[in-house]
Amino acid sequence: MRDSDFFRIALDVMGGDHGLHVTLPGAAMSLRAIPELYLLLVGDSAQIEPQLARLGIQGEALARTKIVHASSVVTMDEKATCIIKEKRDSSIRIAAECVKRGDACGMVSMGHSGAAMVASMKVIGTLQGVDRPCLAAIFPSLRGTPTVLLDVGANVKCKPEHIAQFAIMGSIYAEEVLGVPNPKVGVLSVGEEDAKGSDTTKQAAEYLRTAGINFGGNAEGRDIWECDFDVVACDGFVGNVVLKSSEALAEGILLGLKDSLKSTLLGRLGGLLVRPSMRKFYKKLDYAEYGGAPLLGVKGISIIGHGRGDSRAVSGAIRAAVRGACNNINCRIQERMKRVAEGDSAAQ
Amino acid sequence: MRDSDFFRIALDVMGGDHGLHVTLPGAAMSLRAIPELYLLLVGDSAQIEPQLARLGIQGEALARTKIVHASSVVTMDEKATCIIKEKRDSSIRIAAECVKRGDACGMVSMGHSGAAMVASMKVIGTLQGVDRPCLAAIFPSLRGTPTVLLDVGANVKCKPEHIAQFAIMGSIYAEEVLGVPNPKVGVLSVGEEDAKGSDTTKQAAEYLRTAGINFGGNAEGRDIWECDFDVVACDGFVGNVVLKSSEALAEGILLGLKDSLKSTLLGRLGGLLVRPSMRKFYKKLDYAEYGGAPLLGVKGISIIGHGRGDSRAVSGAIRAAVRGACNNINCRIQERMKRVAEGDSAAQ
Repeated sequence: MRDSDFFRIALDVMGGDHGLHVTLPGAAMSLRAIPELYLLLVGDSAQIEPQLARLGIQGEALARTKIVHASSVVTMDEKATCIIKEKRDSSIRIAAECVKRGDACGMVSMGHSGAAMVASMKVIGTLQGVDRPCLAAIFPSLRGTPTVLLDVGANVKCKPEHIAQFAIMGSIYAEEVLGVPNPKVGVLSVGEEDAKGSDTTKQAAEYLRTAGINFGGNAEGRDIWECDFDVVACDGFVGNVVLKSSEALAEGILLGLKDSLKSTLLGRLGGLLVRPSMRKFYKKLDYAEYGGAPLLGVKGISIIGHGRGDSRAVSGAIRAAVRGACNNINCRIQERMKRVAEGDSAAQ
Repeated sequence: MRDSDFFRIALDVMGGDHGLHVTLPGAAMSLRAIPELYLLLVGDSAQIEPQLARLGIQGEALARTKIVHASSVVTMDEKATCIIKEKRDSSIRIAAECVKRGDACGMVSMGHSGAAMVASMKVIGTLQGVDRPCLAAIFPSLRGTPTVLLDVGANVKCKPEHIAQFAIMGSIYAEEVLGVPNPKVGVLSVGEEDAKGSDTTKQAAEYLRTAGINFGGNAEGRDIWECDFDVVACDGFVGNVVLKSSEALAEGILLGLKDSLKSTLLGRLGGLLVRPSMRKFYKKLDYAEYGGAPLLGVKGISIIGHGRGDSRAVSGAIRAAVRGACNNINCRIQERMKRVAEGDSAAQ
């Protein structure tokens, strides 16, 4: 295999609630699963190096890794913007620099999500034609295909044209990376009728009617979980609230149900029998399967993993980065933005 | 019992997906359960009258009811504002007029929620000191006490002072009607730190710090389902999206889990054993238990029930109206708004 055949991903191995303890096992899983993967392990080399052999990263797999030393870590109590001045030597910033220099085509971090977003936008930079990158959450669907909700937190305040751009980027992501043919796109609002919503959502919908995507009008809160829309666009405030409330509700229901079963003898007995079916169902809801949130609209791939994620989540995030890179979604995003800017509404 | 000892509630019996078929059985349940209840049954008298005896509304219970004829119904495809001119004779509008005239202290409708809100605000009117009435959803808690989320749809666009007023009204509702001592109140935002959020949420928080309530700062999406906050205030756009997405997610999980159990023999067997525990848990999530959403800030009680609700939901909504009336929350809201306007921050 020639060097150019590899997908080179920079992994911030220091980030996340569990740091090296989950990022390195996740890296090992990914190297085994994806033969075309080349990983830059960004972090404290003195801590990383001794672990590799123990995790099975040796021989051919070791040849597909490179340790890139970073002498500090962004902690959760620091400001997202710290990577600009104070934390220039942090693993998040150095991972972004690997992408900026072209040493990697994408980065993955399970660490400080605000800092990872700032690093992606300020160090890697924004794609031509994109006003604001946005964070996309891939919501596991309860029946059928997943739903892409975006923005879920990169932009608290948005203009209508920003939401329209999120919708277009989400449509391309759903098609290229998730394999949804001709994804149906909606603008999140408070009713399905065109007249419902805020001035911002109404104008965003207006833009999207001529954007050359499969625009289905207003989506409501329930549409995020039902099957009608593949992509739902909103400002980062609403998206973030929905993401966090949904996570807490799903967790609460599953935990509550478990407790309820444990509270009676019959429930405990039945619980043993239903465990395999329940596990199968829980797997559907598991965000680790979808591997973190892609930050769309930057000049490279950037995947923001969940801080609480385990090694499977890390491996899922790396897989998402490789998929984004191998489908070359940024070319498609740039092309589409150019056409929209030129007013070529018939473009597909 | 003297006439003044009764709680007189006007029930729009024509509204909701199932109309009379659930509203009248719900009325019968409520008359049995609440001896101090006097119900004005607002709707088509020719349809209502023949049903009463069959439902056990006779004798003493019948003496606590009065049919108030209304010759039309607001259908779901009509505009909310139709009650102002075209549908002056609709059951929703006439129920509101019963409250306006003082014939009832509150109204309940399971019908067109927009029209019920417009009728409450335009016919009954807004409480002195309240700029905008708001719709409060009582979210069943998965552990412990419920959370009041407001506004969930009466006001798409809000100023900071509106959100602050919602928070204050929610605090009074939680204390007086739900019995939560010294409820902890938050403003819904994208992070718990004061610096996180939009200009609107930050300024709303600023107002609330001196409003004489137990203000806990920013609440995040997850706090709606976890136990830290009793009341969470937001604009009606975000609240509506959260309400609808949560309903769909909870329903989806419970249905998905059932399907998953049914798919294997072991699951079906176990499912039989776990059914009682699951039922107990489902009951916790059941919105019917909380009886519809109170519209806070109008000169009277107004409860907006869920269109899909069954007779238990109707009865729950009537119970919520009676509780609101017997705790006299409107006096408390008006008092508090006056004090806040006077800048008496130490007031409790």
